[in-house]
Amino acid sequence: MKLFSQIQQKKSLLCVGLDTDIQKIPEHLLGFPDPVFEFNKRIIDATAPFAVACKINLAFYECMGKKGWDSLEKILDYMPGDIFTIADAKRGDIGNTSRMYARTFFETYAFDSITVAPYMGEDSVKPFLEYEDKMVFLLALTSNKGAEDFQWFSDGKSTLYQQVVSKSQQWAKESKGKLGYVVGATRPDDIAGIREQAPDTFFLVPGVGAQGGDLHAICQKGANAQGGLLINASRSIIYAGKGEDFAEKAAAEAAFLQKETALYCGG
Amino acid sequence: MKLFSQIQQKKSLLCVGLDTDIQKIPEHLLGFPDPVFEFNKRIIDATAPFAVACKINLAFYECMGKKGWDSLEKILDYMPGDIFTIADAKRGDIGNTSRMYARTFFETYAFDSITVAPYMGEDSVKPFLEYEDKMVFLLALTSNKGAEDFQWFSDGKSTLYQQVVSKSQQWAKESKGKLGYVVGATRPDDIAGIREQAPDTFFLVPGVGAQGGDLHAICQKGANAQGGLLINASRSIIYAGKGEDFAEKAAAEAAFLQKETALYCGG
Repeated sequence: MKLFSQIQQKKSLLCVGLDTDIQKIPEHLLGFPDPVFEFNKRIIDATAPFAVACKINLAFYECMGKKGWDSLEKILDYMPGDIFTIADAKRGDIGNTSRMYARTFFETYAFDSITVAPYMGEDSVKPFLEYEDKMVFLLALTSNKGAEDFQWFSDGKSTLYQQVVSKSQQWAKESKGKLGYVVGATRPDDIAGIREQAPDTFFLVPGVGAQGGDLHAICQKGANAQGGLLINASRSIIYAGKGEDFAEKAAAEAAFLQKETALYCGG
Repeated sequence: MKLFSQIQQKKSLLCVGLDTDIQKIPEHLLGFPDPVFEFNKRIIDATAPFAVACKINLAFYECMGKKGWDSLEKILDYMPGDIFTIADAKRGDIGNTSRMYARTFFETYAFDSITVAPYMGEDSVKPFLEYEDKMVFLLALTSNKGAEDFQWFSDGKSTLYQQVVSKSQQWAKESKGKLGYVVGATRPDDIAGIREQAPDTFFLVPGVGAQGGDLHAICQKGANAQGGLLINASRSIIYAGKGEDFAEKAAAEAAFLQKETALYCGG
């Protein structure tokens, strides 16, 4: 799979999050017909040498309506072939509807993977696993405050998020490694526990940077012998600079995170 | 709120689900430039006299890419003002991302309400409740088989879905009734329990018809003094006929469901 070979080749666990908000784009790009695309294009060019993946937060594109989907199409077309793409869409519905969402992100748009919410259970997740060479990142433990509301609900032996991991480990095995987890960077100790439950599973870890997760603690506790991690940084990279040199500043931040994660790539 | 007055006026709890799949549209519509819109337009015309709400399953539109969002826009523009619209989108993400999703469905597209997934907790739900005159239907107990995987996870005193209801009752109060629940029609006994936990909260009940839920059991156990229910039927209405008379057949099915639900409208 592209992702694994790229981690070894680039010695990087970095995933760049394109949470692009038109209200935060440097002024000199606003004159272009599609400023969101122009911004992302420059961020991709600047960060691709240091990153193995790119996570696109769908909310930021959907909120612009058709224009946003248009930008998204152009961004995917522009994406270098060696960058693994993640639709951060957090979909999940009854089986026949999840099948339509899978078609959306894997056929209509050629993403390499998608984030999926577990609340509706097996038939809401499995349609995404039926595709060859596509991955699913199932929400396990998220980085936000609200994670405590339900993900830590416990029967005395395990929490809900641990249940999600243990039940879905079977789906991960059946799918031959196509299922991974979203594990928030704000809780390194819990990452260690999830790594014990799921030694061979890939983790997508958002929350480094703007949300305050500690990079080294996460890598030490979350990496496995193959790396097994993607460290996502969004705002801290794409808004590292606000002026005409925003792309250089993004590159510097990405280069820094590549170096910091190089130690943990395994292989 | 439009929804409550319409239930009393039309004596109906019916919500028509526009899960429109271009592969299932009658042949004679396929020559139109936008067959999905033409189909929905005729379904809306035929069923609006009997229905109070319309639920649009986003997956069926997203999977067509920009064309799908184009159809969606036309459908919303065409929708009669007395029909309460639901974006069945099951979104939910960290606060700043949920805010973008709220903007998508309440500003970019003028839906009256949205379905939201609870897994990520309070900050993933509250941005949707900040809008005046908009409603949120939080997933509580869903109609699919996978519901059993996590929604019934229990600490011995209550299940996860009961936790979702009890915790979010506070948000429902703070939002003055703008929060309701998705409660699947396939489990009438559990609906009775959720009604006890949440006597004044609105329930959106999918799963009648194609998914096999029993209408009268649900209404008896789920209705409150104001009605307090929306009974959604999708495939059983929109695909009631396959030929040129599909709209008449849809109208007949909708009229039947209106009469069946009239008893439970309260008021």
